[in-house]
Amino acid sequence: MALRGNRKPMDSKLGILLLNLGGPERLEDVYSFLYNLFADPDLLRLPVPPLQKPLAALIAASRSPTTRENYAAIGGGSPLRRITEEQAQALTAALAVRDIPAQTYVAMRYWHPFTEEALNQIEADGIETLVILPLYPQFSISTTGSSLNRLEQLWRQRPRLQGVTKIVIRSWHDAPGYLQAMAESIERRITTFHEPDAAHIFFSAHGVPVKYVTQYGDPYQAEIENCVDGIMNLLRRRYQRYNAHTLAYQSRVGPVEWLRPYTEDAIASIARRGIGDLVVVPISFVSEHIETLQEIDMEYRELAEAAGIHRFERVPALNTDPAFIEALADLVSQALAPEPPQASPMAIAA
Amino acid sequence: MALRGNRKPMDSKLGILLLNLGGPERLEDVYSFLYNLFADPDLLRLPVPPLQKPLAALIAASRSPTTRENYAAIGGGSPLRRITEEQAQALTAALAVRDIPAQTYVAMRYWHPFTEEALNQIEADGIETLVILPLYPQFSISTTGSSLNRLEQLWRQRPRLQGVTKIVIRSWHDAPGYLQAMAESIERRITTFHEPDAAHIFFSAHGVPVKYVTQYGDPYQAEIENCVDGIMNLLRRRYQRYNAHTLAYQSRVGPVEWLRPYTEDAIASIARRGIGDLVVVPISFVSEHIETLQEIDMEYRELAEAAGIHRFERVPALNTDPAFIEALADLVSQALAPEPPQASPMAIAA
Repeated sequence: MALRGNRKPMDSKLGILLLNLGGPERLEDVYSFLYNLFADPDLLRLPVPPLQKPLAALIAASRSPTTRENYAAIGGGSPLRRITEEQAQALTAALAVRDIPAQTYVAMRYWHPFTEEALNQIEADGIETLVILPLYPQFSISTTGSSLNRLEQLWRQRPRLQGVTKIVIRSWHDAPGYLQAMAESIERRITTFHEPDAAHIFFSAHGVPVKYVTQYGDPYQAEIENCVDGIMNLLRRRYQRYNAHTLAYQSRVGPVEWLRPYTEDAIASIARRGIGDLVVVPISFVSEHIETLQEIDMEYRELAEAAGIHRFERVPALNTDPAFIEALADLVSQALAPEPPQASPMAIAA
Repeated sequence: MALRGNRKPMDSKLGILLLNLGGPERLEDVYSFLYNLFADPDLLRLPVPPLQKPLAALIAASRSPTTRENYAAIGGGSPLRRITEEQAQALTAALAVRDIPAQTYVAMRYWHPFTEEALNQIEADGIETLVILPLYPQFSISTTGSSLNRLEQLWRQRPRLQGVTKIVIRSWHDAPGYLQAMAESIERRITTFHEPDAAHIFFSAHGVPVKYVTQYGDPYQAEIENCVDGIMNLLRRRYQRYNAHTLAYQSRVGPVEWLRPYTEDAIASIARRGIGDLVVVPISFVSEHIETLQEIDMEYRELAEAAGIHRFERVPALNTDPAFIEALADLVSQALAPEPPQASPMAIAA
């Protein structure tokens, strides 16, 4: 997918385009945001394509009241735009330190700033090399795949972009800097427990329908599982943390089967084991948003406490964690100078 | 469940009763064995109790041809009786070394020697204290529960047994000696790999229907998961093995949902992750039988190899592994002298 031109990218005017999902900034945006979400066939594959839009309108209307309540509970809107713009600024600064001057842009899939808005700005700024960096560590057809499809579709329509060198980073679930930032963040939270060794590490990833993996070839589950094992490996080797862990999938909607275990079932199962202390790690999100602030912190916490889990501590999303921003800067640097990476003490042995 | 009389058990004539499932010794036993299995409402709960026996006959008849083929593939019968009798002899010897003279008996749930046969012998030998030791490390309603129900039913009908002190060991999924025997056995197999750190440890437990856990309160899943985490903890702390692992459930039959992930799905998922080396650990069985020798070694191996896994090495069942027999002797000793156990270097820290 990485398209590289003939000239050396480092000499040209460089842009970094961050891709993310987007979220409604105000309660009155909720319906339109949900409509955009469900109208995307990469996210929700309806059996009769011409019905995608009317059905999206119907589903969006039926889910709006609850979704509005959920956004109201976290302050009336999604913080995703603000956090993503902070990440963009921090990344620009980290690249500047490495003598890589770059402009950063944000393209959200389902809300402002939309991909069109980002591309307008990229054209206006005369960017010559553009690194596309999805803020999804693990590739899924429904997230990175959808954003890249949308980008490709709009890109083809703009003659001025045809001369731009485009470098796509498809996924970075195994990037050493990212795994290390996650391990550090978990370690910081574990040390706050009275008995750190007894805390059970509970990874919660966003789910996808099983058929994405088994029928459409989505690498998402494989990348999530490899990512979790990579983080656990660092925790063991670097911090001598031998805690047990569980991986579950959250946020299921609709009637079809999604990846299992579902987070709610896994919480019940852990409670039955007599485990009382959970360190909850959102694994497919790098920014706080509704699935962390409302779904994990409120809904799943309530379930857990009702089931007898007395300590439920969530690890924050990475947001602008300096180790994470450095990891993103590493990804950009490597994409621009794609020599084989040096053997590094950060590399995971197993 | 442990019933203890007033006299000191160590002074009385001691018996140890080992409980297990049983298996057909010859191909012509297969139908009757399957009938016994499916006629047990603890193992298969049919919605209309009076139909249990005729339906059991039907299911047994329909499954017999395949089951006979499977037993034919492992030499024409189950080795379970022979192995269990060897375990009984080894346990007698291990207890004798500890100055605990005891007779051992075997009661199989679905084939010879049946519980009746064991009780006849226990009466004839004049046993005064009987320790009941199920050869299932983890309790399930469908295994240990069924055997204990059957034993209780027959026990009540025998006046001569009413004076016998009965000590029941319900489960021992967290017994340090057992966990250590398992960890040692896995460690021995891992060291045979060219790259031991890259081997993925794949625990396969016998499955049960989900409703056993969620509706009937079966502790099976919790005990399996705690057991796996206990073994992994020992591997990390004692052998510095930081390998990733997976737990899956095998042997599903019938239309209802069983515990997940199913072993066949988990193998496919691991293959998609690009993992090539599997150390397969049967976790709910302590003796070789059809589910290890045929289902894992033949069926699951074939699936795994077709999916691209190039090394599939099973850890043997514990059988008469000396560390395992010592662990059983520990269980018996502790049941007879149930003081609080001393802090031991074998204890698991987390």
